[in-house]
Amino acid sequence: MAVTRWPEGLQSAGVAAGIKGGDALDLGLLVADGPAVWGGTFTTNAAAAACVAWCRSRLSGPVRGVVVNSGNANACTGSSGRAAVEATAEAGATALGCSADEILVCSTGPIGIPLDARVIEAALPAAMASLSPDASALARSIMTTDTYPKVAGATAGGARLTGVAKGAAMIAPNMATMLAFVGTDARVPADELQASLGWAVERTFNRLSLDACESTNDSVVALATGAGPEVDANALRAGLLEVCAGLATKIARDAEGATKLVRVSVTGARDEEHAVALGRAVAASDLWRAAVHGGDPNWGRVLAAVGSADRNLDLDAVSVSVGGEILFDRGEPVGVLAAAAAAMRDGEFRVELVLGQGHGSAEVLTADLSEEYVTLNAEVTT
Amino acid sequence: MAVTRWPEGLQSAGVAAGIKGGDALDLGLLVADGPAVWGGTFTTNAAAAACVAWCRSRLSGPVRGVVVNSGNANACTGSSGRAAVEATAEAGATALGCSADEILVCSTGPIGIPLDARVIEAALPAAMASLSPDASALARSIMTTDTYPKVAGATAGGARLTGVAKGAAMIAPNMATMLAFVGTDARVPADELQASLGWAVERTFNRLSLDACESTNDSVVALATGAGPEVDANALRAGLLEVCAGLATKIARDAEGATKLVRVSVTGARDEEHAVALGRAVAASDLWRAAVHGGDPNWGRVLAAVGSADRNLDLDAVSVSVGGEILFDRGEPVGVLAAAAAAMRDGEFRVELVLGQGHGSAEVLTADLSEEYVTLNAEVTT
Repeated sequence: MAVTRWPEGLQSAGVAAGIKGGDALDLGLLVADGPAVWGGTFTTNAAAAACVAWCRSRLSGPVRGVVVNSGNANACTGSSGRAAVEATAEAGATALGCSADEILVCSTGPIGIPLDARVIEAALPAAMASLSPDASALARSIMTTDTYPKVAGATAGGARLTGVAKGAAMIAPNMATMLAFVGTDARVPADELQASLGWAVERTFNRLSLDACESTNDSVVALATGAGPEVDANALRAGLLEVCAGLATKIARDAEGATKLVRVSVTGARDEEHAVALGRAVAASDLWRAAVHGGDPNWGRVLAAVGSADRNLDLDAVSVSVGGEILFDRGEPVGVLAAAAAAMRDGEFRVELVLGQGHGSAEVLTADLSEEYVTLNAEVTT
Repeated sequence: MAVTRWPEGLQSAGVAAGIKGGDALDLGLLVADGPAVWGGTFTTNAAAAACVAWCRSRLSGPVRGVVVNSGNANACTGSSGRAAVEATAEAGATALGCSADEILVCSTGPIGIPLDARVIEAALPAAMASLSPDASALARSIMTTDTYPKVAGATAGGARLTGVAKGAAMIAPNMATMLAFVGTDARVPADELQASLGWAVERTFNRLSLDACESTNDSVVALATGAGPEVDANALRAGLLEVCAGLATKIARDAEGATKLVRVSVTGARDEEHAVALGRAVAASDLWRAAVHGGDPNWGRVLAAVGSADRNLDLDAVSVSVGGEILFDRGEPVGVLAAAAAAMRDGEFRVELVLGQGHGSAEVLTADLSEEYVTLNAEVTT
């Protein structure tokens, strides 16, 4: 499938380094043929992993590759964690014949467990040997409790864009809350790529809230090889938006234990920021998400969530629809609950909040809260 | 038992009005022999129920009684909900021979379902007939998914205080997030009672976060009959703090589906507000609460939660203990996970966060997130 192939000038691999144990893919490599322009957005969590600090500090210069592991987040691991990032970058540099400064390092998995960089170093030759223009092995190697690999593509002014991502849990706003790698052959300046990526991430990954838990390792990295045509900022933004939205939707659909994708659509807000804040409040409500799991159009829980996020909200101007059925119309309960419940039986439905205050609007993605989510996260992992 | 008895001048009752159906107690009555001084703190949720608006608007004058129902929150019910509150107050006034302005009305239960005040009016004579100094029937009548009635008592400068509360779910900070009624025979001015109640609620109920979902009906009401001794503000605060803390702890222990009480203790914060904010962030983490359910001392999830709540936190100054075992010491992972896991097997344990920034401290109560919580809240209730 075309979408699983990288644009010109990029190759990737995914191998088993033994971090997860057994033959599970846990080491990914994304390599540009030459120095690539790049942009990145990272978690703003104060407990950010050492690899996040490493990438952030390299945000201006060109890069040759990304070394990414799953099975260990290398977060909150202190000085040994910082040393592991440096050793990984050095090993990547040796493999690619570049300087360590040109290697980005990303990790995902449990927090607080020391990461042995030697296992990564030992597996890099195998990864180099299996580099290919196909993105799927990389997409598989970054999975944690994801149940399928996530790849999305787009074109932008004649250039191509391909992205891979992982999600599952600890998915909440304020930075990408997961890992995603986007590659393009577009010829674009680094500052434009960075600005366009930030713009697209804000409208896609940052409008995804699955469990309102923000990760220590969130990173979205975009590499542009310049092997393809020059594209203007508008085309680049549109292309990045398409890829990032595609990946964000796949992450929401594959949320840990989730069975339904919920699009929380907010209109009539004071401004876009207000719309996003109220959408996130609904997406963060355990009670609403449990009701979604049971197929119960419990719109009262939606109002309780937005009422706590905006204490000045005038309920007499607010309407709520679930699955297309209006259940609360400017202060009064209305509608047919059974109609909303029927719409909720689909794998995807929409909650629409109309605030009647202005022209701000936004859509936030979330999923249901299931018993399985609890079971998965109650397992002893440390 | 003495603690289940109201102080001099107060009586209560709990009867089955048929709101829940069957013979479940769902209508409570708290009556003062004469006009009582009162104070109240209420949800700040913009989707606050009509009964909350009613009580808030009566905050200065004396009251004779409180009519409270469970089984229906009468929230987001529009004009019919407002009419139901007025009809309930009128019915209470007729029963007690006072004006409707002297009757407080509280409700708890599902949101968005019309409440028929006629069933309350019809059951009030039975409630009047069963009034007694024992608080337990009232405590039972306000239960929703609570598994036991919650009563606590204290003395203050020779005066007595008794309180009842209900909790279970939709329990989060910013107002009491539940219903509680405290009665005392103390002779105190209304403004002092109001100020002291606010002070105590801030330090008890407002430091309870079970599912981070804030209710539309939270109300804490304190009645002072003045039949007992005059007490000064310090004694009153100490007494209210004791009663409210006792009720808050009972609510945390009886959280929906929960098996463990978790005390999140934060010290070394910039100030008390900072300590409360970080304690609440830990209490709001679904991932940490699921780990607690599984008995997993996953301290990384604690750090991820505080790192998202304070983006400038310096991890190299932070320490985390679970059940008395230090697992993260100023930037480095340390300690024995098995020791922490053993302490977590108890029905109650402490997470200690030391921030190394100042002298602010606070304790926030929470509980584990279980599969049962999801199952309970996925049931179709609307």
